[in-house]
Amino acid sequence: MTRNNENRAILPEPTIRRLPWYLSYVRMLDNLHIEYVSSTQISKELNVQSSQIAKDLSFLNIRGKTRIGYEVRSLVTELEDFLGFNRHHNAVVIGTGSLGTALMQDHGLENYGLNIVAGFDVRDEVIGQCVGGVPVYDINQLASWRRTHDVSIAILTVPVERAQQTAELAIASGMTALWNFTPIRIKASDDVVIANTSIYAHLAIIYNRMHGNDQK
Amino acid sequence: MTRNNENRAILPEPTIRRLPWYLSYVRMLDNLHIEYVSSTQISKELNVQSSQIAKDLSFLNIRGKTRIGYEVRSLVTELEDFLGFNRHHNAVVIGTGSLGTALMQDHGLENYGLNIVAGFDVRDEVIGQCVGGVPVYDINQLASWRRTHDVSIAILTVPVERAQQTAELAIASGMTALWNFTPIRIKASDDVVIANTSIYAHLAIIYNRMHGNDQK
Repeated sequence: MTRNNENRAILPEPTIRRLPWYLSYVRMLDNLHIEYVSSTQISKELNVQSSQIAKDLSFLNIRGKTRIGYEVRSLVTELEDFLGFNRHHNAVVIGTGSLGTALMQDHGLENYGLNIVAGFDVRDEVIGQCVGGVPVYDINQLASWRRTHDVSIAILTVPVERAQQTAELAIASGMTALWNFTPIRIKASDDVVIANTSIYAHLAIIYNRMHGNDQK
Repeated sequence: MTRNNENRAILPEPTIRRLPWYLSYVRMLDNLHIEYVSSTQISKELNVQSSQIAKDLSFLNIRGKTRIGYEVRSLVTELEDFLGFNRHHNAVVIGTGSLGTALMQDHGLENYGLNIVAGFDVRDEVIGQCVGGVPVYDINQLASWRRTHDVSIAILTVPVERAQQTAELAIASGMTALWNFTPIRIKASDDVVIANTSIYAHLAIIYNRMHGNDQK
C-alpha cells in the first residue's frame, strides 16, 4: 500500500474528530460481516452530511465505488492506519489518582494504539505498586527512567496546581506529546504536541446547553 | 446579584472551553490569597490573547478596574456561577467499566457541580454492588428508578456497540442530557443535549500532530 506524503499532513481538527466516528461505525459493520457501506448510510447512521463524509474520507487512500460504496474491511484498515491506531505508541501516566488509574486499567486504549508502560506519582503509598499490571515509579525518577525507555507521550492526570510544573518536568525528560486531562492550559513551546481533554469544560457545555434549553 | 437573561444564552463553544481555564487559574490565585488579577497576567499564564480574555469575560457580570484588574474572589464566584459549577446536577453513570467506575470515584466532579447518584449496568456481578459509595442497579430498572429520582444527566460509558441503544433507553427514561464517552456519535432529537468526550479522537489528534512534526 502506498501512502502519499500529503496524508501525513496536519489535518483540520474537525476532520480528525469525525474520523474515529466513522471507524467505530465501520468496525461494527465489519463485526457483522457487512462488506460494503455507502456514504449515505454512514451519513444516516452518524448524522453527518454525506458530502462532508466524502470530503473527510478523501484524505484517505480509499475511493468508494459507484452504487456499491466503500469496502468495509478496507475502510477499517485505512482509517486505523491513517489515525495511527494500528501502530504502537508508548505512554506514561503522571498522577495515578482515580482518572490516571482508570486509564492504566483501560485495555480499550490498546485498541487505539496506546500502550501505557509506566505510571509516576509523588505519593509513597503508590510508588512501587502496580496498577493494571503497570508499575508506578517515583516522579523524581522520570528523567532517568526516560533515558532508557522509548516513550514520547505523557498523560497528565495530576492535580491542577501541579499541572504546569509536571508538564515542564515531562518535557525536560524528553516527552514530546502531552495528553492533558487537567482543567488548566499548559504552556509549552510549539514543538510540543498538547491535546487537552478537559472533561470539566464538557460539563460546562452540558450545563450551559441544558439551561439554555430551559429558556425556551 | 442580578443576572441578565442574556447570560443564560447559549455561548460559543470555544468561549465555554476557555472559561474553565480561567476558573482553574483564578482558583489557584485565590488559594494563594491574591486579590487582583489583570487580563494581561491571565493572558501570560494561559497563553490566550488578552483581548480574547476580555471578550470572554464580557459575558459575565464582572468588569475589571483600570490598572487594578479583576477581583479574584469575585471572578471565581462569577465563573463558578456562570458555568453552573456551584449548582448541583444529578447524574447517573451507565456502564460501570473502568472509565465509568473512575468517574464514580472521582470526587473532583463534585467541585464542578456533578453528583453521580447511581450507576447502571447489565452485568450480574456488579449489579447490587457499590462503587465509591454509589449503588449500581440493573439497566432494566433505569426507567422505573428515574420516575422517583430527579436526574437529567446520563453519562454513557458503555461499550461502543451498545451506545446508541443505551442512549435511546436513557432518553426514553427521561434523561435530557447525555455525556457520551463512547467513540461513536449518538443520534437523538435536537432537544437532547449531547456532549461528546471522545478520548480516542484526542489520541488521533496527538498521533497526527506527532507524525506531522516528524515530517519537518
